[in-house]
Amino acid sequence: MTKTPLFEQGRHLLSVAQFDRRTLARLFEVADAVDPIAKRDGVCTVLDGAMLGSLFFEPSTRTRLSFESAFLRLGGEVTTTTGFTFSSMAKGESIADTSRVVSGYSDVLVVRHPDEGSVAQFAASSTVPVINAGDGAGEHPSQALLDVYTLEKELATRGKTVDGCQIAILGDLAYGRTVHSLIRLMSVYDGVGFSLYAPPGLELPKAVGQAATRRGHALEIADTVADAVRGADAIYATRVQRERLPETHQAAVTHGDLLNRAILAGAGALDAVIMHPLPRDSRPDAFDLSTDVDDLPGLAIFRQTDNGLNIRMAIFLTVLGVSTEAVRLTTKQRPWKATLRA
Amino acid sequence: MTKTPLFEQGRHLLSVAQFDRRTLARLFEVADAVDPIAKRDGVCTVLDGAMLGSLFFEPSTRTRLSFESAFLRLGGEVTTTTGFTFSSMAKGESIADTSRVVSGYSDVLVVRHPDEGSVAQFAASSTVPVINAGDGAGEHPSQALLDVYTLEKELATRGKTVDGCQIAILGDLAYGRTVHSLIRLMSVYDGVGFSLYAPPGLELPKAVGQAATRRGHALEIADTVADAVRGADAIYATRVQRERLPETHQAAVTHGDLLNRAILAGAGALDAVIMHPLPRDSRPDAFDLSTDVDDLPGLAIFRQTDNGLNIRMAIFLTVLGVSTEAVRLTTKQRPWKATLRA
Amino acid sequence: MTKTPLFEQGRHLLSVAQFDRRTLARLFEVADAVDPIAKRDGVCTVLDGAMLGSLFFEPSTRTRLSFESAFLRLGGEVTTTTGFTFSSMAKGESIADTSRVVSGYSDVLVVRHPDEGSVAQFAASSTVPVINAGDGAGEHPSQALLDVYTLEKELATRGKTVDGCQIAILGDLAYGRTVHSLIRLMSVYDGVGFSLYAPPGLELPKAVGQAATRRGHALEIADTVADAVRGADAIYATRVQRERLPETHQAAVTHGDLLNRAILAGAGALDAVIMHPLPRDSRPDAFDLSTDVDDLPGLAIFRQTDNGLNIRMAIFLTVLGVSTEAVRLTTKQRPWKATLRA
Repeated sequence: MTKTPLFEQGRHLLSVAQFDRRTLARLFEVADAVDPIAKRDGVCTVLDGAMLGSLFFEPSTRTRLSFESAFLRLGGEVTTTTGFTFSSMAKGESIADTSRVVSGYSDVLVVRHPDEGSVAQFAASSTVPVINAGDGAGEHPSQALLDVYTLEKELATRGKTVDGCQIAILGDLAYGRTVHSLIRLMSVYDGVGFSLYAPPGLELPKAVGQAATRRGHALEIADTVADAVRGADAIYATRVQRERLPETHQAAVTHGDLLNRAILAGAGALDAVIMHPLPRDSRPDAFDLSTDVDDLPGLAIFRQTDNGLNIRMAIFLTVLGVSTEAVRLTTKQRPWKATLRA
Repeated sequence: MTKTPLFEQGRHLLSVAQFDRRTLARLFEVADAVDPIAKRDGVCTVLDGAMLGSLFFEPSTRTRLSFESAFLRLGGEVTTTTGFTFSSMAKGESIADTSRVVSGYSDVLVVRHPDEGSVAQFAASSTVPVINAGDGAGEHPSQALLDVYTLEKELATRGKTVDGCQIAILGDLAYGRTVHSLIRLMSVYDGVGFSLYAPPGLELPKAVGQAATRRGHALEIADTVADAVRGADAIYATRVQRERLPETHQAAVTHGDLLNRAILAGAGALDAVIMHPLPRDSRPDAFDLSTDVDDLPGLAIFRQTDNGLNIRMAIFLTVLGVSTEAVRLTTKQRPWKATLRA
Repeated sequence: MTKTPLFEQGRHLLSVAQFDRRTLARLFEVADAVDPIAKRDGVCTVLDGAMLGSLFFEPSTRTRLSFESAFLRLGGEVTTTTGFTFSSMAKGESIADTSRVVSGYSDVLVVRHPDEGSVAQFAASSTVPVINAGDGAGEHPSQALLDVYTLEKELATRGKTVDGCQIAILGDLAYGRTVHSLIRLMSVYDGVGFSLYAPPGLELPKAVGQAATRRGHALEIADTVADAVRGADAIYATRVQRERLPETHQAAVTHGDLLNRAILAGAGALDAVIMHPLPRDSRPDAFDLSTDVDDLPGLAIFRQTDNGLNIRMAIFLTVLGVSTEAVRLTTKQRPWKATLRA
């Protein structure tokens, strides 16, 4: 893949590499500005008449719903296609032809595909901007963006910044696409300390770690989860997919939790920000984040998924060249309330 | 399940037990008020910017379309998910996590699920109101509500009321969830007479019948369909699912109709209101309601399904706290006509 | 099927036989008038509150997206159902009952079904207009309409008309529903010359050819693709489905292209308008239209699919009785831009 240009109006969003510190800050400003709409305090019609083509060649219900809701909340309309292949692709149609045809029906496309690089291929023939919603082992930029946005906001409530923070990353560091994108996107910040814990066989690829240290970040491999989280301002836990591990290494992840209240208490980390890309495996002995942390004030996993709406709204507004002033002018009160009664 | 509170703004709708006479009357007033919108005489935008999350974990196309159309006709937007499981739930995500995440994208959720009690579980973690669209052998409250609404309206055109009426209920009374909910919801009325006919093996569960008689209603078991419908003001017929019957009882339902014109004529009941929850099995010897009654003026089965739009609009307006006055102020003429030419 | 009336407000659209020269001209005028909306230069709300029921009993993603986008671009709302059968139809529900129920939720229905004649059956019980989006070996009228619309527009840019033009039709002429509808719809024009090429075993049915010659058109069978395209103003190529051919005839279509740049150059036809209903099979030796023609200015296959939006908007406006003046009055500027940066 050739170097993709910085993310701005009229560009595809294919990779976290399209962000520098300024581009990221600008996106987060827009994400802040649309918060009243995300939180349902106002109704916005700025994308009136705009059409999102939502194309999920592999299922990812939560990501799809988050993108579609974000677009609808801005006043746009959505057409949805899910399933492994288009009926036309089964008849031998090229990605180029499919992309050219479907982009004729839409003003922006969100594309999820199981094959690395295929979303970029799709973008090459599209007549409208394409947002990568995950391409296999490749990228899932909107996830990394909402992760970093959440980290900034959560740390800010404690008077801290991402610059100079200490972050523990736990779980599957080998295959976890979100972890790689997160670490890569953190390169726009200064002086971050990473402490990593992965079960044997699921260690971080060398290249990803080197990119961080080359950027001047500190990177430390911990032997236990407790060691990793001790002193951390924030903890990013991820699901371990047992089936990915060699037989000889499975014993390490066959019982208990990756992280729970007892481990946090033991390491003096009960106050840390806790994040997770979700889904969290809540079956017994799933070796994931335990639900016994759910009442800790630092548990940010649902604020994190809620922030996905803000980030995806900001992506759409940026790519379609809509100012936050235009958003403000087209936002009004609503006569309905979605609040649950106590 | 603990006692669910009466249905009003900011509440989940999980069970017909959430209605007393006053709550029901209020819902029906709203259903009447939105009739011009249901009948396409006006276009309403009161739910502008509101988002319905339509979650059908088991297929039920007509129920889904009815809910979605009702929400769209009020000016809202819809995201749809169908299929047995969320991709995330297959990865071990709990109902609680799924519910918390998805409710963050929506202002109200409609949930259908094959397992009894699962919709209530879903509601427990949702941040927005949840409407039960059927949970297995459990409840399907909007169906019972539209049934009773139809019964009231149909009887009213004959100068009758549900209080004191005689109603025949035919077919599968053992497994038919709609029949149980209907009889239970009828407990808010006075002096109803039920005459029941079920093929052997499909009789009404004792508890359901006792609830009706304890409430003071008369309940009579008929030996034949003719006996059941004789003197009835209204007839509620349901599909018999042959595969549910023991081998020894299948002979009774292997040919002919459950109800047809000849039976009605013989029992002097050609003028009765005829209802059916649909779908109606129209295959030969399906032992269901025959199509030879389709030109009887009392056949209300399609008015019944049309009334579903009114009831579901009323449910959404109630739960989101929107007054009929707000509806009136946001309803306008439309420049298009959907009328078929003769 | 009895003779269907000319296409106008309040009518179903089931067949190309519903068009005479005047009806066709009127539809194309509307298609021209909505071009600014199709091209995203304006946002239209004329169908505010109107509901399209999109029912695809067999998959056809591009046709579905084109119809849905067309309706949404006019300001309407869409409910979508895809899949081989309705859950209710699996339970023995008749097409008549399904149609009556679903039409109660919608203002217009678009129906795709694998069985010939089934869409007309559906229409017979619907309370709102039904648009045929393809019924097996039957009709697919909107495709033929967009084909002829494209042909008129493309020829007009060369100072030519469909009257008196020479058109080559290539590929599967035996089973290609679109080819039959196209030739049938061409009967409203005068003095058209057809030159046909089909691999052995895939020749045009006699009845379709005779209808054209009876109308006064010239019809010639060519031995090679080169012969067919020589002197053609426009070329309509279609995909050959190898599996439809008898074993003995497959050799003719097992390698190379149906049409490519070399054939066009050899026949002096590099300037011709090139059309294709898509999808195009781009796998090696697919015996379809080669991608080596993609940079020819006459290649109209993507303008053709884009024109589908205009035609489908025009169909909806006609059937719902909306004037182009009403469209103009409800079209406004938009604050967003879908343009890709160079």
